[in-house]
Amino acid sequence: MSSDPLVIFTPSGKRGHFPVGTPVLTAARQLGVDLDSVCGGRGICSKCQITPSYGEFPKHGVTVADDALSAWNAVEERYDDKRGLAAGRRLGCQATVQGDIVIDVPAESQVHKQVVRKRAETRDITLDPTVSLTYVEVEEPDMHKPTGDLERLLTALKAATGHAEISVDMHLLRPLQSILRKGNWAVTAAIHQGRDGATPRLTALWPGFHGAPAYGLAIDLGSTTIAGHLCDLSTGEVLASSGLMNPQIRFGEDLMSRVSYAMMNSGGDLEMTKAVRDGLNELVNDIASQADIDKSQILDVVFVMNPVMHHLFLGIDPFELGQAPFALATSDALELPATELGLDIAAGTRAYLLPCIAGHVGADAAGVALSEAPDKSKDLVLVVDVGTNAEILLGDQQGVLACSSPTGPAFEGAQISAGQRAAPGAIERVEIDPVTKEPRFQVIGSDLWSTDEGFDAAIATTGVTGICGSGIIEVIAEMRMAGLLDPSGLIGSAEQTGTNRCFADGRTNSYRLWDGDEDNGAITITNGDIRAIQMAKAALYSGARLLMDKRGVDKVDRVVLAGAFGAHISAKHAMVLGMIPDCPLEKVTSAGNAAGTGARIALLNRAARPQIETLVREIEKIETAVEPRFQEHFVNASALPNSADPFPILRSIVDLPEPSFNTGGGDGSGGRRRRRRG
Amino acid sequence: MSSDPLVIFTPSGKRGHFPVGTPVLTAARQLGVDLDSVCGGRGICSKCQITPSYGEFPKHGVTVADDALSAWNAVEERYDDKRGLAAGRRLGCQATVQGDIVIDVPAESQVHKQVVRKRAETRDITLDPTVSLTYVEVEEPDMHKPTGDLERLLTALKAATGHAEISVDMHLLRPLQSILRKGNWAVTAAIHQGRDGATPRLTALWPGFHGAPAYGLAIDLGSTTIAGHLCDLSTGEVLASSGLMNPQIRFGEDLMSRVSYAMMNSGGDLEMTKAVRDGLNELVNDIASQADIDKSQILDVVFVMNPVMHHLFLGIDPFELGQAPFALATSDALELPATELGLDIAAGTRAYLLPCIAGHVGADAAGVALSEAPDKSKDLVLVVDVGTNAEILLGDQQGVLACSSPTGPAFEGAQISAGQRAAPGAIERVEIDPVTKEPRFQVIGSDLWSTDEGFDAAIATTGVTGICGSGIIEVIAEMRMAGLLDPSGLIGSAEQTGTNRCFADGRTNSYRLWDGDEDNGAITITNGDIRAIQMAKAALYSGARLLMDKRGVDKVDRVVLAGAFGAHISAKHAMVLGMIPDCPLEKVTSAGNAAGTGARIALLNRAARPQIETLVREIEKIETAVEPRFQEHFVNASALPNSADPFPILRSIVDLPEPSFNTGGGDGSGGRRRRRRG
Repeated sequence: MSSDPLVIFTPSGKRGHFPVGTPVLTAARQLGVDLDSVCGGRGICSKCQITPSYGEFPKHGVTVADDALSAWNAVEERYDDKRGLAAGRRLGCQATVQGDIVIDVPAESQVHKQVVRKRAETRDITLDPTVSLTYVEVEEPDMHKPTGDLERLLTALKAATGHAEISVDMHLLRPLQSILRKGNWAVTAAIHQGRDGATPRLTALWPGFHGAPAYGLAIDLGSTTIAGHLCDLSTGEVLASSGLMNPQIRFGEDLMSRVSYAMMNSGGDLEMTKAVRDGLNELVNDIASQADIDKSQILDVVFVMNPVMHHLFLGIDPFELGQAPFALATSDALELPATELGLDIAAGTRAYLLPCIAGHVGADAAGVALSEAPDKSKDLVLVVDVGTNAEILLGDQQGVLACSSPTGPAFEGAQISAGQRAAPGAIERVEIDPVTKEPRFQVIGSDLWSTDEGFDAAIATTGVTGICGSGIIEVIAEMRMAGLLDPSGLIGSAEQTGTNRCFADGRTNSYRLWDGDEDNGAITITNGDIRAIQMAKAALYSGARLLMDKRGVDKVDRVVLAGAFGAHISAKHAMVLGMIPDCPLEKVTSAGNAAGTGARIALLNRAARPQIETLVREIEKIETAVEPRFQEHFVNASALPNSADPFPILRSIVDLPEPSFNTGGGDGSGGRRRRRRG
Repeated sequence: MSSDPLVIFTPSGKRGHFPVGTPVLTAARQLGVDLDSVCGGRGICSKCQITPSYGEFPKHGVTVADDALSAWNAVEERYDDKRGLAAGRRLGCQATVQGDIVIDVPAESQVHKQVVRKRAETRDITLDPTVSLTYVEVEEPDMHKPTGDLERLLTALKAATGHAEISVDMHLLRPLQSILRKGNWAVTAAIHQGRDGATPRLTALWPGFHGAPAYGLAIDLGSTTIAGHLCDLSTGEVLASSGLMNPQIRFGEDLMSRVSYAMMNSGGDLEMTKAVRDGLNELVNDIASQADIDKSQILDVVFVMNPVMHHLFLGIDPFELGQAPFALATSDALELPATELGLDIAAGTRAYLLPCIAGHVGADAAGVALSEAPDKSKDLVLVVDVGTNAEILLGDQQGVLACSSPTGPAFEGAQISAGQRAAPGAIERVEIDPVTKEPRFQVIGSDLWSTDEGFDAAIATTGVTGICGSGIIEVIAEMRMAGLLDPSGLIGSAEQTGTNRCFADGRTNSYRLWDGDEDNGAITITNGDIRAIQMAKAALYSGARLLMDKRGVDKVDRVVLAGAFGAHISAKHAMVLGMIPDCPLEKVTSAGNAAGTGARIALLNRAARPQIETLVREIEKIETAVEPRFQEHFVNASALPNSADPFPILRSIVDLPEPSFNTGGGDGSGGRRRRRRG
């Protein structure tokens, strides 16, 4: 037994004997306890705060005397005066061991903090960003040892960080000498460490001790919307979020029209590259001013996006993505200076682009895979990111399959007669009384149902302007449950349905959801709207089925709906329409913007990068365009679920009437055939 | 014993048994024989040409039958038709082994060719550049294995080169897809491999087989002149050389005036950065058009330069170099994209800057060290690069010392009353008859002596315009040997010297070297000229002596004079003046532009880079500015050698008179004291 005092750290439980006088930080480092320090124990950064405990600890077998740590010292006094030290806290680099002691490392003093995610089925993120700050004191120049200022700085940084090599961004060469002198030979350095084995790089430098943390941006570069989250890389906290319309929209609403624009207009791809980069710069400025931070502190940016956006952002003509075999110029993850992507940001800032899975399944899907981790799931999970294209992942610990399915924009309210984007005034929820066939609905901006008292007043400013994606799903599903719609997707006549809300409208019938008022006209669901949703849901369902076939299963254990649309969709209504495979309702969850979350994970945890790169390489990619079975499924999937399988769970939950008012043939392919004729 | 045929390669002597049908290239690769191939054995590049030998080889113990190699095949026929194959040559990738065979690998088919240097004391350069070209065929895209085009290209390149990892320059992403398709999935790639352990990079790409070699530039960025050599990296041959005045000259003739310009003018350093970069671009264009090559084929550039030029070129304010402790911003070697240095050149081109030795001893001195390799010398060698500053190296295999000495521009003809740059019309050689005291001389542009018949006609176009650096050395040394000059550096009067070419000129005497003609005035050597040269040579000699002191020696085995000036200087005359330590004349050699040669070595041989980086780290640097002994030596060294030591060898060669016409004190420090009074 050593006669040196015993030091026990909680919550890790690591313990060891240390000579009297050993600083707590030193003891922690020797034991491998996760205790932060930017300034290397100089009493400047206060990152190494610890909480000593005194008294009897029978569990640990020690008694801690009141003087087990050295007395409060001048450095701690000064720090407390200037910035305040919480009661019971000490600075780990100043307090020294004097006797047996139990020391708690609070969560905020740990380097590898856990960033907690709210959803039960997802893992927390271990904070371990690519960029870290280090304060060092640098040897002054000496004529007799004439190494450069940079080389002496690197020597100090290597000693402080333990890195064997550190390379340097060239933009630092010019300001280097004045920074060193301004800081009186002390500087704070940002070091970016990409993948393991890559040489860490010095990417930013400030004179003296620089208290502000490094920030990072996670950006989801969507076809329609660009969304960014600004994170404090020392806490993992999201400080600000911002979004804007993708300025490329003026070149085409959907991706294929942008690819066409590039093909039809010489230099068109570069115009779009410039547009999206300009938009990003606007976003970066907005988010920095929103969080009231200096843009120069943003040192890492992670991007997710679909393949066409990926290529256009990188300045690559997306031509090849518009035609078989949909060859990506590059599929692997990329790490490069953000300025090379036209970002007006600190010269040392690095951009990381998640890998693309395939020509139709982009880095956004990789983000979803990183966030939802199907590869780590014990049960078989289907993850669907619903957008203009649906990216679909199916898998568990045995393996993951992926495909993309061309759902088109109907789920976003396009191609729907009264459709609109999700915005105040849009109908988002619908219920139809199965007996009276009378509807009630909610519009975005109010919690009242249309039948509630005060509804008219509540919507006075917005009006009822249309129906958004989740609203259209609900109304069609409700129509189906109320017996207004047969399994082939045809709306019954007033006679057949017993309500004059159904009315003849050309060769088919329509359903009047809202009568309109002086400001806005009536909102009607036409048979064309039903058809559009049938096509979209058939594409989605066929993709999922195709992956299930490949996997050799006919059911999944759970379903995750990702994307903004997925966040608002009602699982029951989606299943009534046959959008997703049969599954217990409580096993259908929403992941929100999982692609963006994936970007945030890759921003906060550097180990997540090789992890998703490996997963993407291992994912089995299925190209729906050349799979005969996809076409087969698609033809069959346009019908709405009926008494036939494969929806036993659904049928146990809801009671689907099977009206006999078929006029155009009630088999599953009716809609398809009609479309062909039309 | 294997029954397979025996294959013997010459000149390596490597041998082995190979099954009938093995291509010669395959056998060579398996045996580690140095046989080139760009196309990987596809019969395209013709780099693997070999010469089979037939008949009896008693030395090797084999008899080679006429059919020991497969018959000439269609690929060889086609190549011979198109480009011609020398008699007796075969393509190593096409000819297969059929029986015992002796195969010679001609020098031009070796990868690691020897580039022969002319001077006996220097080593040949092994050709092994950082950039190499590889032709590969790339797998076409497949929807079922949706990796990017880039990833499939890299897979092919890794297989062809054996590199485990290859990274990619981002500028290639945009043109990649069209290059691959234009080349019908075959491309030629330039791969840059920097230091061992660094990941090789794909830096340029051409569709199909690209026959042109990669080129490299070695550039000596002098304060006065920028000189460049264009090399074929596949042969080591210098294809073109070009030089231009450093456009920074308009900001100051010498380095310190440029440092002052930067200090006195805000943004002045950036003006100078732009000037030198503009000059370099002019040089690159000039040299490419001179050699009639496409600039986009220049893929590597190596630079040597002094510390101030180094900083100005990199865009670093040289302020700190103008004052003690002369701190370099960075001293280590740098490798970066040439475009980051403002070079208008292929985007993938890399620039390598040799390391700086100290604040006054730059990458140019490192180039001299690499070229002259004092660290590999068995005898103790003093290497002097004479310019505005003299960089001095002293060493052998035991170790190397370095310093810089502020000689000033006198050796270049500046500060000399009739001085001028070395150009047609300048006097470069002088002899003075020790009896008559009559001079004769040669001017640049003619081989005739001034006393030869036809001299006046020969110089009719140039005239006699002044005296250049080597001329001033010679005339002063000749004056000394003719007894016109005492050891303190005073010119005797007509009376004292017995020639009226010496004449009173103010408080001292001058010597009339040339009487002038109708075009140009007389050329006279004044006592001020002598003083200027005395100061310069004292600085040079003191630096050398200081290093000798540090090394603990009082003589050196040999002296190498580097630099353009060193190339023209007469060793005997330099020694008569006491510029360099006493040394047998035949041991004083000229190395020409050794700094530029060092750049060329680092261009042609990648191993030379870590080698010079290591040497520079190991060199013992002496800062003359703070060495008391340097001042001491300097005071003593202004006198010209006389009967006192340390010039026993010199005195055994020439007979130095010691005239008694001292008027101002004949001791060695006379010149110095007078200067102080003046």
